[in-house]
Amino acid sequence: MSIKNRYWVLASYPEGMPVENNWRLESKEISDVPNNHILARALYLSVDPYMRGRISAKQGYAKGVELGSVMCGGAVAEIIESNHPDWHPGELVETINFGWQEYAVLATDGLTRVDPDIGPPHAWLSYLGMPGITAWIALNSVGKPKSGETVLVSAASGAVGQVVGQLAKSYGCRAVAVASSQTKLDWCTNLGYDAGVNYRASNDLNADIRQACPKGVDIYFDNTAGPIHDAAMQNLALRARVIVVGTISLAGKFDEPDTGERFLRQILVNRARIEGFLVFDHLEMYPEARRTLAHSAAHGQLVFKTDFMDGIESMPAAFLKLLHSENMGKQLVRTAGSHGYPE
Amino acid sequence: MSIKNRYWVLASYPEGMPVENNWRLESKEISDVPNNHILARALYLSVDPYMRGRISAKQGYAKGVELGSVMCGGAVAEIIESNHPDWHPGELVETINFGWQEYAVLATDGLTRVDPDIGPPHAWLSYLGMPGITAWIALNSVGKPKSGETVLVSAASGAVGQVVGQLAKSYGCRAVAVASSQTKLDWCTNLGYDAGVNYRASNDLNADIRQACPKGVDIYFDNTAGPIHDAAMQNLALRARVIVVGTISLAGKFDEPDTGERFLRQILVNRARIEGFLVFDHLEMYPEARRTLAHSAAHGQLVFKTDFMDGIESMPAAFLKLLHSENMGKQLVRTAGSHGYPE
Repeated sequence: MSIKNRYWVLASYPEGMPVENNWRLESKEISDVPNNHILARALYLSVDPYMRGRISAKQGYAKGVELGSVMCGGAVAEIIESNHPDWHPGELVETINFGWQEYAVLATDGLTRVDPDIGPPHAWLSYLGMPGITAWIALNSVGKPKSGETVLVSAASGAVGQVVGQLAKSYGCRAVAVASSQTKLDWCTNLGYDAGVNYRASNDLNADIRQACPKGVDIYFDNTAGPIHDAAMQNLALRARVIVVGTISLAGKFDEPDTGERFLRQILVNRARIEGFLVFDHLEMYPEARRTLAHSAAHGQLVFKTDFMDGIESMPAAFLKLLHSENMGKQLVRTAGSHGYPE
Repeated sequence: MSIKNRYWVLASYPEGMPVENNWRLESKEISDVPNNHILARALYLSVDPYMRGRISAKQGYAKGVELGSVMCGGAVAEIIESNHPDWHPGELVETINFGWQEYAVLATDGLTRVDPDIGPPHAWLSYLGMPGITAWIALNSVGKPKSGETVLVSAASGAVGQVVGQLAKSYGCRAVAVASSQTKLDWCTNLGYDAGVNYRASNDLNADIRQACPKGVDIYFDNTAGPIHDAAMQNLALRARVIVVGTISLAGKFDEPDTGERFLRQILVNRARIEGFLVFDHLEMYPEARRTLAHSAAHGQLVFKTDFMDGIESMPAAFLKLLHSENMGKQLVRTAGSHGYPE
């Protein structure tokens, strides 16, 4: 067996906003699958905001990607060859450890079996995968929404935000979207969001959020940090919960201090809580989260938009599209392996 | 009955740091105690950081003091006359609703009976009162300290901080003090604090806190906001809890936005939690808190320093002393009524 693999390595650390030539496409033959490992072929490669944190020299919550190493990332893939008794060729797996590549030789400890009966394979990277599970766990276990409360969501049409809004509505909350275009807000309305703010068109984000959240913000699901965070903090209701899930608006100044107004008086006056959330801390809740999301999707109570680009060559472009908020829904890259699978 | 009462009214809203002539001493005869009211004579008047928030035009968690009205504040007082069957002359009471005055006519719904057997009367304004109870409830219910964790405390020799440090030590934590002078830090050492940082003498607060908290800050008990907060945020341990209890360092720029570095990446990376705390939200926990604190004090496990000034004339000066961090321990003003009571 010998397969030619193409993969992206990190060529340089970005200064500010990443650019395409921070990565380099390389290729190499794969001819060996060690004991207890598998060889898998990508169907869908995931593009996620957390990747920005892995290509910074700064300390993050996980080890960064080294220069010259394969860029990190998750995928849904098909097992081509197996040297492990529990995993078989033809089976589909999801793993965060795949990398930006067409094929991967993988240890089996980070693999999740993809059950094609509960959703299309790519859903394991979106509403049945990390983004959907993030939405479900963070909203339920940190936000603890109560019926009648207002849930404000930034990047509301994104992979996480789409799910948050629909969950919030299902709990009887008012869901308010913040997004970067009217097209995105229209999709949010379709998802059930009650109101929306286009932050790129807004002259006064603080006032626009106040108008969209007349009783104040009980839960702010913060996927972005930056100016939307600042406006949300000035509209907190008593005992508000701010869930810090992502900081994508800082992507262009990742290694600089983020300066601006701080809100300790608002936190104190409103007895508000701000909490950082990382889904990998909550592995024990994944099965329940995935089961619940799959059930909702099967009953038409959860709809979801995915933005596909094609071919391994597209990976940096797809990631930059995400960082520039130009994606419409969950950003994925589809490879030749995906041919014939339902979407 | 006719008694001449002296009291401080708010003469003007401060611009920035308050000054003495923001208040005006007035006097008036009290000749009537309505039904279900009492007349009480102050023994000790309390001076507390929260008062800064009540003399601002900005929205706070409580209604502000109006110009020309008696300045708000708590006291321990003796009942002189009663028109309520449950309260009797000679009994001691504690109330947050007394005001900066020598006498007060009070409804009885905000009164707490002072039991002189479990501590000197003035303790109802310090370690058996709001500051001590704040320390106990906030540390236990928000901080949830575990043995071996590091608890960093700003204003560590103040009314709240003294209690926090001793509680943290009793839970097996490393307690680290931040204060404005070596004298205060010496007292903190006496209380059991393991290390201390003099923020006025520090050239690099971030580095000094890092050195004093080599395993990072698990709980930051934030009585101050400002530069100490900023340095603490850069030294958070994984799953740190930041309890925002006071913002006294903002006293001089209360009505301006507080700008500087923000720490959302640190919050996310460390999955940290910041939470605003107001003790009045937790009235149901007061009895347990007070009982526990009194028990510790009776067994020599809780010691406490109080800074007394004398006479109603001293109220603004005592409050300004607190805002300028010049007090040594809980700041109180003692009036003639306190004569003969144990301290």
